[in-house]
Amino acid sequence: MTVQPFTTKDFTRRMENAISQAAAAGLTGLLVTPGPDLVYFTGYRPTAITERITMLVLDTDHDPHLIVPVLERPDAEAASGAPAVTITDWADGTDPYAATARLLDPHGRYAVSDSAWALHLLGLQEALPGARYSSMTATLPMLRAVKDADEIERLAAAGAAADAAYERIIGVRFAGRRERDIGNDLAGLLREYGHSQVDFTVVGSGPNGANPHHEMGERIIGDGDMVVLDFGGLKDGYGSDTTRTVHVGEPTAEEREVFEIVRQAQQTAFEAVRPGVACEDIDRAARRVIDDAGYGENFIHRTGHGIGLTTHEPPYMVAGERRPLVPGMCFSIEPGIYLPGRFGVRIEDIVTVTEDGGRRLNNTSHELRLVS
Amino acid sequence: MTVQPFTTKDFTRRMENAISQAAAAGLTGLLVTPGPDLVYFTGYRPTAITERITMLVLDTDHDPHLIVPVLERPDAEAASGAPAVTITDWADGTDPYAATARLLDPHGRYAVSDSAWALHLLGLQEALPGARYSSMTATLPMLRAVKDADEIERLAAAGAAADAAYERIIGVRFAGRRERDIGNDLAGLLREYGHSQVDFTVVGSGPNGANPHHEMGERIIGDGDMVVLDFGGLKDGYGSDTTRTVHVGEPTAEEREVFEIVRQAQQTAFEAVRPGVACEDIDRAARRVIDDAGYGENFIHRTGHGIGLTTHEPPYMVAGERRPLVPGMCFSIEPGIYLPGRFGVRIEDIVTVTEDGGRRLNNTSHELRLVS
Repeated sequence: MTVQPFTTKDFTRRMENAISQAAAAGLTGLLVTPGPDLVYFTGYRPTAITERITMLVLDTDHDPHLIVPVLERPDAEAASGAPAVTITDWADGTDPYAATARLLDPHGRYAVSDSAWALHLLGLQEALPGARYSSMTATLPMLRAVKDADEIERLAAAGAAADAAYERIIGVRFAGRRERDIGNDLAGLLREYGHSQVDFTVVGSGPNGANPHHEMGERIIGDGDMVVLDFGGLKDGYGSDTTRTVHVGEPTAEEREVFEIVRQAQQTAFEAVRPGVACEDIDRAARRVIDDAGYGENFIHRTGHGIGLTTHEPPYMVAGERRPLVPGMCFSIEPGIYLPGRFGVRIEDIVTVTEDGGRRLNNTSHELRLVS
Repeated sequence: MTVQPFTTKDFTRRMENAISQAAAAGLTGLLVTPGPDLVYFTGYRPTAITERITMLVLDTDHDPHLIVPVLERPDAEAASGAPAVTITDWADGTDPYAATARLLDPHGRYAVSDSAWALHLLGLQEALPGARYSSMTATLPMLRAVKDADEIERLAAAGAAADAAYERIIGVRFAGRRERDIGNDLAGLLREYGHSQVDFTVVGSGPNGANPHHEMGERIIGDGDMVVLDFGGLKDGYGSDTTRTVHVGEPTAEEREVFEIVRQAQQTAFEAVRPGVACEDIDRAARRVIDDAGYGENFIHRTGHGIGLTTHEPPYMVAGERRPLVPGMCFSIEPGIYLPGRFGVRIEDIVTVTEDGGRRLNNTSHELRLVS
């Protein structure tokens, strides 16, 4: 299946929507630099992010302007969103901040992409000391959080590819192999199923599974190990991220019990998803199941994070996040229990908010799969 | 050959030297974020550069302090430079900028890594409005420009690996294959000779060679084509970058003549290298040869750039850069002539400044190699 590229109309709609959001937040506009924000608005992804400034200026009073280094102008003009923006360039030996400042209101208030280089922000602050700058996350955290139908289709395809990789990995031999070997197998499978980029392949066997930050290592997986598999990356520009915990050989009664608590926590949180519910209530739903079972202290991270052009972005399912769910938001639900020195269990699906509930974008079984 | 890791002593020396440079520039200290600056001072390279702040604070009044997200503390502690720094952490749900600000002088003047996220700089500016911030490039451009013996050894090994890749690529068939095929061959060879990362593989055949920004494409290389090959990446953390121009079959007299001018320009610029010479004089030396031959308008970029933990960094061999060469600086010398719509020629070696001249870190022949 070929993915239809986003059109000028898609990019125009996104830019108009962002400008409205900025105005509602009391901002003059947005200053967007290379990375996911720029891809979102223009489809443009420079070969490298460098000391040479590239910036999209979105505001209420002007058409969208993209300023680029002159050497990169042909690349920018070839981007799918280029017809929706006016492109300006600057040449080596001239002052790029003076050139960019001419596109801005000297007393404006601007939200700046989180990952914009400090070099460029300092250059603009010097060129326009009367303007005010804030971070995109602080002022427009939900800018890319609500996905349109085409984006959800891409996220669903990425999820299906990750699911296919999981169905294959449970057929390989685990016992006697290193975590790194399984991780490499997983990365290869993600690529085989169309991922252009693998962001992480966590293989946490036995005690390593109890450290949610553990990626993978030289440990030889043995019979009797729980193994946390958490993997994802980008397919056609959109992210996948799923976790399943498998067991090598027969699990103990305790292992089955801990697994079942996590499974119920994941299911309960999923069933809480519907428009208007606060993000923190999704976290609370999962946490209550684990608390009630006596493992509250062993669930040591938030319940989920948004996903889209990146594998970690707003909205966050975490205590204190009172913003409501909106149809089109896509995020992970990934409760876990971690028993230090022994094992861990985590189950994670990407979920999208529908008009009246939630829909999973990962659909492999939640049963405890036994591997060899 | 196994590369000896840098020691705590190496990192301590680098940090002390940077603090002296900062003091001499009227700064209180340096704020160093993940990327090449942090690797240089501590050997620490977080798995991902994210919205969670990690920052090394270097100043004259305190021991070096590294603040990290608590989840990443074990990774930071495992870095080879960790014994030389005090590690502090912050947890999700607390204010990371307040925690970082406690390590700073409220009225201090700090140089910030160029690629620090705007999100973090804005957070610090809000937490400490009385402090002043400038970019590393604006205030301490030569911070990593002078390499020590161990760094030069790594750069020499990266250069030798790129040379080995070149000796192999000239043995493959060019005619009838796409630029992209040759580029993929080159990338594979760089990896085979120990590169962990390939940053670029320019294959500019025929008229494509006349665009120095062209990377590689679908063009089928034919008999009679000049082909510019410009490739490099990282080996053991340090960069390679070399260019040779080859010819498919017999060149014309004009092609030989243009090639010979570029060869002489490269050689003349190389012979100008010695301590105390201004960077711009290296550019001028190459440019004069090309100007005198009547091709001045066809040499459309600077003559060179520094190399180290990245493949493009100060010092730049460009008009207006009056800083003097210092023993240990490493940079490219890469003059070229570009004839639009026809062909291009570029020859590039990495060179290091010695006590009394220069030493090439690329050593393949400068003769025009004919390929099949």
